[in-house]
Amino acid sequence: MVQRFLFSCILLFCVYALQAQKAPRQGDPKLTEYWEPEVKVIEPGKTSADPPSDAIILFGGQNADAWAAKDNSAAKWKVENGILTVAPGTGEIHTKQGFGDCQLHIEWRTPAEVKGESQGRGNSGIFLMGRYELQVLDSYKNRTYSNGQAGSIYKQLPPLVNASRGPGEWQTYDVIFTAPRFNEDGNVKSQAHITVLHNGVLVQNDAHLWGSTQYIGVATYEKHGDKEPLVLQDHNNPTSFRNIWIRPL
Amino acid sequence: MVQRFLFSCILLFCVYALQAQKAPRQGDPKLTEYWEPEVKVIEPGKTSADPPSDAIILFGGQNADAWAAKDNSAAKWKVENGILTVAPGTGEIHTKQGFGDCQLHIEWRTPAEVKGESQGRGNSGIFLMGRYELQVLDSYKNRTYSNGQAGSIYKQLPPLVNASRGPGEWQTYDVIFTAPRFNEDGNVKSQAHITVLHNGVLVQNDAHLWGSTQYIGVATYEKHGDKEPLVLQDHNNPTSFRNIWIRPL
Amino acid sequence: MVQRFLFSCILLFCVYALQAQKAPRQGDPKLTEYWEPEVKVIEPGKTSADPPSDAIILFGGQNADAWAAKDNSAAKWKVENGILTVAPGTGEIHTKQGFGDCQLHIEWRTPAEVKGESQGRGNSGIFLMGRYELQVLDSYKNRTYSNGQAGSIYKQLPPLVNASRGPGEWQTYDVIFTAPRFNEDGNVKSQAHITVLHNGVLVQNDAHLWGSTQYIGVATYEKHGDKEPLVLQDHNNPTSFRNIWIRPL
Amino acid sequence: MVQRFLFSCILLFCVYALQAQKAPRQGDPKLTEYWEPEVKVIEPGKTSADPPSDAIILFGGQNADAWAAKDNSAAKWKVENGILTVAPGTGEIHTKQGFGDCQLHIEWRTPAEVKGESQGRGNSGIFLMGRYELQVLDSYKNRTYSNGQAGSIYKQLPPLVNASRGPGEWQTYDVIFTAPRFNEDGNVKSQAHITVLHNGVLVQNDAHLWGSTQYIGVATYEKHGDKEPLVLQDHNNPTSFRNIWIRPL
Repeated sequence: MVQRFLFSCILLFCVYALQAQKAPRQGDPKLTEYWEPEVKVIEPGKTSADPPSDAIILFGGQNADAWAAKDNSAAKWKVENGILTVAPGTGEIHTKQGFGDCQLHIEWRTPAEVKGESQGRGNSGIFLMGRYELQVLDSYKNRTYSNGQAGSIYKQLPPLVNASRGPGEWQTYDVIFTAPRFNEDGNVKSQAHITVLHNGVLVQNDAHLWGSTQYIGVATYEKHGDKEPLVLQDHNNPTSFRNIWIRPL
Repeated sequence: MVQRFLFSCILLFCVYALQAQKAPRQGDPKLTEYWEPEVKVIEPGKTSADPPSDAIILFGGQNADAWAAKDNSAAKWKVENGILTVAPGTGEIHTKQGFGDCQLHIEWRTPAEVKGESQGRGNSGIFLMGRYELQVLDSYKNRTYSNGQAGSIYKQLPPLVNASRGPGEWQTYDVIFTAPRFNEDGNVKSQAHITVLHNGVLVQNDAHLWGSTQYIGVATYEKHGDKEPLVLQDHNNPTSFRNIWIRPL
Repeated sequence: MVQRFLFSCILLFCVYALQAQKAPRQGDPKLTEYWEPEVKVIEPGKTSADPPSDAIILFGGQNADAWAAKDNSAAKWKVENGILTVAPGTGEIHTKQGFGDCQLHIEWRTPAEVKGESQGRGNSGIFLMGRYELQVLDSYKNRTYSNGQAGSIYKQLPPLVNASRGPGEWQTYDVIFTAPRFNEDGNVKSQAHITVLHNGVLVQNDAHLWGSTQYIGVATYEKHGDKEPLVLQDHNNPTSFRNIWIRPL
Repeated sequence: MVQRFLFSCILLFCVYALQAQKAPRQGDPKLTEYWEPEVKVIEPGKTSADPPSDAIILFGGQNADAWAAKDNSAAKWKVENGILTVAPGTGEIHTKQGFGDCQLHIEWRTPAEVKGESQGRGNSGIFLMGRYELQVLDSYKNRTYSNGQAGSIYKQLPPLVNASRGPGEWQTYDVIFTAPRFNEDGNVKSQAHITVLHNGVLVQNDAHLWGSTQYIGVATYEKHGDKEPLVLQDHNNPTSFRNIWIRPL
């Protein structure tokens, strides 16, 4: 009796001892699971281009109510057939709301009828925080300076490739933008950086910006708020936009 | 006559002088244009999901010829109606070609008929470089651990949001992956990092990985080549894939 | 007379014209200078180890007044001859002030008399934000696990090299730390990352942390404030510290 | 006898059983230890400024043999009392060896006798890869443009603070540099970035460069090799250097 118990005991001991002697890597898989915090559920768009449930719709086709003209009056660009088109000469428009770090989806189309060349063809621009310009241009068989073509951060960073569609065709930008941070004294704590897919193709890969876009002279940073309006440029070409949504990050 | 010429001359001089006296920031805009190197032209896909002209098509619908089984024999997964589906029990498949830094587009679908729960529902995985798993799972109304759901880097990094579509619906991942770099002695010089859009929604934002995915114990890096095959996991669920393309960066 | 003036005029015109015709790259160098904002002047220490004028001195040799025990009573560690030494069993100490992004200089010394081995020799730790442990250990001819030796982020990231000095010798850490950012729901917006020089040698190079240090199980992030106290560990070894200063970034 | 053994056995069993029954998070701490690869041991310098055993000494005080003049003849700068001093008019010098990613320690001193102002006082420069200039200048009570003072990446990035010592005093730079990567077509795959401690104070924090330093016009990247010589500038001021060492990363 004692021997049987002894035997069982030794057996059990051996089992445990063996288990304990197992090499690392063979422990409890639960140790590397974590359940909290729970990940927030959102509803994605029907396609990757459609706004997910947590996006702010900046232009959905009906109206330009999310936008204002430079003097804060109503945006004067044309809204027709679900499309927002630059009304040349009416000036840039900006969102009424400000944004910092964000994911932005925007679709644009340069005029089907090709006019002008280089920077004169279908030119517009998307100014993140009103300052950092992602160039919009008809860059289809239209050579211009590398850091001025579609997909470039204007006068700073050329795109990795030219993934342009032709004039009159809709094109997309999917943007992941991290705003710059400033010290109290106005110096730059960390540079803005950006990742851009142009028509689904990576054209900016965590590229760090030099500063606010400048037409003349170097781009430098000027301290600004955490959230600033998004601006669309009137460059005197009737470039169109649609399906604009943004997710603050 | 002389006076008229004199006058013109003075006028021209004044124009130039004025131009030269302009304050900084009002110099020649050409100074910040650069034309070389010229940006390579590629043709984007018809939609952002379609492969651009410079992508390597890993699965276009016809066959799984770009893939092999673990023993390097032909991949045994099912190809039907342009869809590649896990044949449970046949094991993982890997690309014949190796990849390092890359942009990857991949579409996947978990079974319409819901079976199992947590990790047991529509489970598969995309192993970048054969090691770094971007989880594939039916995470629609299916709670599991945060770092194990769709959009997570398995057992490491939970997604920023749960942007899952339902069972039976096609979902997309757009991935920008930077491979780790190793020192000669096998230590990590720089960590792998990844950006992922799930159904168009940002779920990983330049997230840095801990190492090779492990089911048990911590993920650690093990030195490997610059280019390693992409692996799709057989987790015993008939999860499907389509439209897989990759652009080495 | 008129002719002389005419001649001068043409000459001047030509000079300006020539200047204006210069090729790009040969414009005004002032265009790439910028003067604002002015850079703040500070006074560096006498040596690179001494505190600069804008540093907060956490331990200057006199007293441990910047620190408190876990229960917020006075720190019970020993201050003698300008040195702060763990009083084993009195528990960790933390700064009264909280810190986020920072540059930290700290000097430490393990006991001259070698006792114990592996993790048992001169063990202490510097917990940034009270959570992210930069290991302090006598790692001079004392093999332990790679991600547990001096210069490691404990149980996460091994140092690039072992740059340890011997027992009884003063060693330095120069740390550049970027705090993690959290979303409101507690998920990680961006990971903490760190650069460390150990005795002047780079041992962590912008390494991204997995989360709060854990002795058992994986490190995960838990949402915390922007500024949290720095903690020094009592690991039952009389490890010493001196010359501790920090610059919030 | 049997009973005693039995008793020991039960005791041991209980110990193991208890150990095995611990809840998750209370598993085996060994699971998060990893021992391979072993971390390479090096010997740090006596102070943080002294070269560690794995550094390449570029100037140790004896001679300038690691350097050459622009035409690859012997460097003509003055070596005296362990100090390397610009011989104005003899031109820049470059290391015979090339470097890419690196940790660099360098000490420099502007003339004790103050002459000139702004860019004319104690001007020299450290060109990483022969292209990316970390400015050397007497910036002690000597206002110049922010992106041209000591600690700046010349004409690109101003320092976070001005941590200059006075004329005639030795100053240090501790630099962590990551080289840019280029695509085959010459476009930039990833930007160069840099962290700099000036006299022990952080002045550049993972700052991303715009391109090769330019005196006139914008800095742009031009494809170059993985390893390129380090260059010291002759700017006609007798600025001195000492204790220069580098660790390829």
